[in-house]
Amino acid sequence: MCNHCVIENVKQNMLSRRSLFTGMAIAGAAVVGSGVKTPVLAQQSPGKVVDLTHAYDGSFPTFDGNPGIEYEWAVEIAKNGYQIHKLTIFEHTGTHIDAPFHFSADGKSVDQIEPEKLVAPLAIIDITDKAKDDANATVEAADIEAWISANGEIPKGAVVALRSGWSKKVTDPSFRTDGAGKFAFPGFGKSATDLLATLDVAAIGVDTLSLDPGNSADFAVHNTWLPAGRYGIECLNNLEELPVKGATIVVGAPKHKGGTGGPARILALV
Amino acid sequence: MCNHCVIENVKQNMLSRRSLFTGMAIAGAAVVGSGVKTPVLAQQSPGKVVDLTHAYDGSFPTFDGNPGIEYEWAVEIAKNGYQIHKLTIFEHTGTHIDAPFHFSADGKSVDQIEPEKLVAPLAIIDITDKAKDDANATVEAADIEAWISANGEIPKGAVVALRSGWSKKVTDPSFRTDGAGKFAFPGFGKSATDLLATLDVAAIGVDTLSLDPGNSADFAVHNTWLPAGRYGIECLNNLEELPVKGATIVVGAPKHKGGTGGPARILALV
Repeated sequence: MCNHCVIENVKQNMLSRRSLFTGMAIAGAAVVGSGVKTPVLAQQSPGKVVDLTHAYDGSFPTFDGNPGIEYEWAVEIAKNGYQIHKLTIFEHTGTHIDAPFHFSADGKSVDQIEPEKLVAPLAIIDITDKAKDDANATVEAADIEAWISANGEIPKGAVVALRSGWSKKVTDPSFRTDGAGKFAFPGFGKSATDLLATLDVAAIGVDTLSLDPGNSADFAVHNTWLPAGRYGIECLNNLEELPVKGATIVVGAPKHKGGTGGPARILALV
Repeated sequence: MCNHCVIENVKQNMLSRRSLFTGMAIAGAAVVGSGVKTPVLAQQSPGKVVDLTHAYDGSFPTFDGNPGIEYEWAVEIAKNGYQIHKLTIFEHTGTHIDAPFHFSADGKSVDQIEPEKLVAPLAIIDITDKAKDDANATVEAADIEAWISANGEIPKGAVVALRSGWSKKVTDPSFRTDGAGKFAFPGFGKSATDLLATLDVAAIGVDTLSLDPGNSADFAVHNTWLPAGRYGIECLNNLEELPVKGATIVVGAPKHKGGTGGPARILALV
């Protein structure tokens, strides 16, 4: 199809209903047609939305074992015709953000993370096999290097997420601890985040309870990655539904001023 | 540029750094090349991210006038090396979602809103001029019809947002009340939502404190739109930075189980 045909097709599409390919064709044509950055008046609708967020309530596993959210009715529908909860939320509950301020007194709070860092290419490092043998398996520098060998450079501005299969265990005690009651779950090893820190990476994410593995004695990743001004995402869900490369993650971080993080809505577009 | 050239260009782009047009060209090529829905292994990165979310704390205006969020330290950095807030949040605070369950005892709670309805084309109905003359100005059916005449059909699955300029007043009492202390802000008129209810529209949004205008006596829009199974967004910010047609909105609704709504992170991609 020639360039003229593409643009004509776009014009037709602009008159038709929204669809995956309407928007994409329009957007694509903007490049093909001019090759320069121009306003793109298009529906940039993705083909598929994958929800990377767990629904949660007070039974959702937390690091300290206490309920992360409590509900109370502030306005009741029987009396008022509508209803509102008063919620008590501990910031690091459910699928949530760790802002730099979580581990550094002068770090950026969650409302200060730049919006441009909340929409990013997603690179997934799969360690499911390692995690079957070792509940405290970690992503190490060699895993990042292997990903690059297979998939090319880590995309600029990426969120790099660990996929261990752990999200499937979320309703089971083994999501959090081993048979002896000790913390046991996969996380990032410091060799990996030391490597990622040399790259243009916005955030790291895990499908477990913590950026550091369960058996971490020193929270080495939290203590280096966050104070360096980058953020983290914990308790991701449904990473199994995504390719290791090619999805775009949209991080709906909460925006309360001065927050150390908080429950977030994380969506992926593929 | 011929189809073959587009695809070759895509291959080259896949090897290069993330950019606006890399993803768009790849996505466009998927359409041009096949015209059928295929997996699109592309960075679908937008050109620009516009944050439609106000940062908020206890000083942010609320409907009932009480602080919508309170902070307490649950873990202190001086003692523990990291910090976490315990937050008390009234669900309808800041830039937030109204789920059907807010106004109907059997409606969908915020965690039950389908993820597919959280990524949508955004149609903006501008009533800034009307709102200069009347603080309680409303979007009516005629405004929707005028938008359609100028811009074509409301896109399938859209979020339709009212833009009144009110977000600029957010730190001033006039965001909420008039000189006599009465509620006064723009909203949707029922003729508009009755029309939108006949279309495939996921949600309505406002840059004010409520879906209904400040002088509403009966919350007619809340009482019809939400129980019909659609959602709302209140206190949107920065709609002025967007075209009235062509942006994609990503609604980072909170996902606590059984919620009537809650603070959300709303981003637009253009």
